[in-house]
Amino acid sequence: MPVNYTAPSQLLPVAGVRLGVAEAAIKKPGRKDLLVIALDEGSTVAGVFTQNAFAAAPVQLCRERLAAGHAVRALLINSGNANAATGAAGLAAARETSAAAAAALQLPANAVLPFSTGVIGQQLPVARMVAAAPKAVADLCADGWIAAMQAIMTTDTVGKGASRQVHTSQGLVTVTGIAKGVGMIHPNMATLLGYIATDAHLTPAATQQLLKTVADRSFNCVTVDGDTSTNDSCMLIATGKVGGTAVDAAHADYAAIAATVEAVALTLAHAIVRDGEGATKFVTITVGSATTAAEARTVALSIAHSPLVKTALFASDANWGRIAMAIGKAGVEGLDQGLVSIALDAVPVIEHGQPHPHYDERKGAAVVAQDEFTIAVGLGRGTAAATVWTCDFSYDYVKINAEYRT
Amino acid sequence: MPVNYTAPSQLLPVAGVRLGVAEAAIKKPGRKDLLVIALDEGSTVAGVFTQNAFAAAPVQLCRERLAAGHAVRALLINSGNANAATGAAGLAAARETSAAAAAALQLPANAVLPFSTGVIGQQLPVARMVAAAPKAVADLCADGWIAAMQAIMTTDTVGKGASRQVHTSQGLVTVTGIAKGVGMIHPNMATLLGYIATDAHLTPAATQQLLKTVADRSFNCVTVDGDTSTNDSCMLIATGKVGGTAVDAAHADYAAIAATVEAVALTLAHAIVRDGEGATKFVTITVGSATTAAEARTVALSIAHSPLVKTALFASDANWGRIAMAIGKAGVEGLDQGLVSIALDAVPVIEHGQPHPHYDERKGAAVVAQDEFTIAVGLGRGTAAATVWTCDFSYDYVKINAEYRT
Repeated sequence: MPVNYTAPSQLLPVAGVRLGVAEAAIKKPGRKDLLVIALDEGSTVAGVFTQNAFAAAPVQLCRERLAAGHAVRALLINSGNANAATGAAGLAAARETSAAAAAALQLPANAVLPFSTGVIGQQLPVARMVAAAPKAVADLCADGWIAAMQAIMTTDTVGKGASRQVHTSQGLVTVTGIAKGVGMIHPNMATLLGYIATDAHLTPAATQQLLKTVADRSFNCVTVDGDTSTNDSCMLIATGKVGGTAVDAAHADYAAIAATVEAVALTLAHAIVRDGEGATKFVTITVGSATTAAEARTVALSIAHSPLVKTALFASDANWGRIAMAIGKAGVEGLDQGLVSIALDAVPVIEHGQPHPHYDERKGAAVVAQDEFTIAVGLGRGTAAATVWTCDFSYDYVKINAEYRT
Repeated sequence: MPVNYTAPSQLLPVAGVRLGVAEAAIKKPGRKDLLVIALDEGSTVAGVFTQNAFAAAPVQLCRERLAAGHAVRALLINSGNANAATGAAGLAAARETSAAAAAALQLPANAVLPFSTGVIGQQLPVARMVAAAPKAVADLCADGWIAAMQAIMTTDTVGKGASRQVHTSQGLVTVTGIAKGVGMIHPNMATLLGYIATDAHLTPAATQQLLKTVADRSFNCVTVDGDTSTNDSCMLIATGKVGGTAVDAAHADYAAIAATVEAVALTLAHAIVRDGEGATKFVTITVGSATTAAEARTVALSIAHSPLVKTALFASDANWGRIAMAIGKAGVEGLDQGLVSIALDAVPVIEHGQPHPHYDERKGAAVVAQDEFTIAVGLGRGTAAATVWTCDFSYDYVKINAEYRT
């Protein structure tokens, strides 16, 4: 059960985007596991990808096709198999399956970007996917977002999607996004599969810049287990159907569009943590009075990744000693423990590196017994800050990951 | 139940070392939780300590007293309370309790080094420890090693100790060591409490160098959960009772003594992993054909720390895709996945970044079903290598750490 999150029952269509799903029985039969997202001509597409050196075949192909500047007209996405660590055969499979979607759409092969998520190290069932691609194309429709959201799930317990609208000088802009991911989640460039589309008219440079900025403030600030997937990809699509001149970063409408895209991305990113494998709590970690934002982020992630902190949170144990440990091990040069403060929501726990005189275990326990709360850390060094979001570490995390392939 | 490890029933006395225990009811009554190790005059003592910036009060005091060059004549060790994140009061408590032991031993206060392990963030019960210190001194005896080993345990399920002997030109040298630690274990300078004593006659410089070298090859190569304790301390004591001239690193006997100390340290370090919180498997991870040993170690630790790898090992699932993921996320600049190899014991799994043509899931599953096995990785970049030891990640890890304070 996700922490205070339910899947949307409805998502707004985005003019210029159609979605279709089909069953390719990739991991097992009985579910729609293949998704085609078709884009009208003139759409702009930006992507950010995993930094894992074992980047999956589809990630390699996406990078190649985006770098070559081919116009992107469709995305082909499968769940159930990651097509990672599959060598030359995997790369050929990504080419062949995306070519099948391209053929069904009467497009050149390199107009289709492939994406995969699921088990690492197994070859794609190419024949079944090639056979299913035309069925997904036949299923294309503007209100296919909910079915699409469900098709990309793996161990997700709920689909993740969000829509927002904003008025701009060029008209009403719609932003709709879907994402999947619950484990192998770590902030290292778009830590999941995420697809956000808008009918805003953005220049290619503005699209890429917006995606990078938004990903850094949303998907790159959530962590479930500190593991970085081989397949992480996040795409921003701007179909331009709203019309008007193309918006660049200097345009008056840019800020409103950017804020709306960010709101969608943040909802999706938080949904990933709320549905984190085995999660029972949604925890915000802020680190302030740091020398730099990077330093603050390092400390926040050290806390967010600590198995000892996460198991204590699962037990509703305000074991702030483990938080102190995680701050101390973050490797901040010259950190003075005598200046460090820790608060749980509004309850000061540590001041000047030692227990606050009015701290009482019951107050701390009351905070961490909630299903959402904030751990606020001050380093006493400067004015920079960072926020990350994470979940606790429960029996079910072990259960889910011990049983994943069985 | 530790993986293929049982506590020793007997440890060899080391001439010049006496040990005594007493009950100070530090966390709860009913066990001997205070240990005094008394050293004859002329002993040489070296220490390595945690790199955590929240270093505990006793660690700060040890560093101060060792740096000042005071002759060390005794160690005072308590379990049940870490005296970490306790501020000025914690430092005063460390001074006061070690002074009580010094008084009982008729020594100057700064001749005693204090050590603590247990819960972080609570003040020591100074009065009870001061009262118990003379009792521990009254209990001092040369064959107190087994009782000492038991006194320093926290969540350890078994005591950890080892003895070895070696013949040198100066006579028979004995090395006996004890250690504690099962969680918050990460290789970052002596990740536990460990005390190794020998009757060899070593120069102070040789003692410190030997400890550093041995710790880097043993305690600094094991990891349970990647968390770094605030209290990690490892001490090497050389009483010199064997006699002869003091052995330095150039002496003919140095290698034999060093190898014996390393054998004791390695047994203790492995015992910590074998008794790792919730451990059901003991896993050796070797990374070869790396550019540097540091690079190999980074990759080995990335595998050893990955919750997804560790939960798969718990499930006896040869999920090598997660091993590939952990190699890829290690951040090795320019790593070419097409040159990477992975083997499970003697079974080649990945070659040139893709499944070995003769690999069969059943062969991999048979390896990881064992309670001890090796994950061998080749990076295809150079000739350097590193080895680390770790355990799997089970329900019981969560259980132990969720229930630690309750």
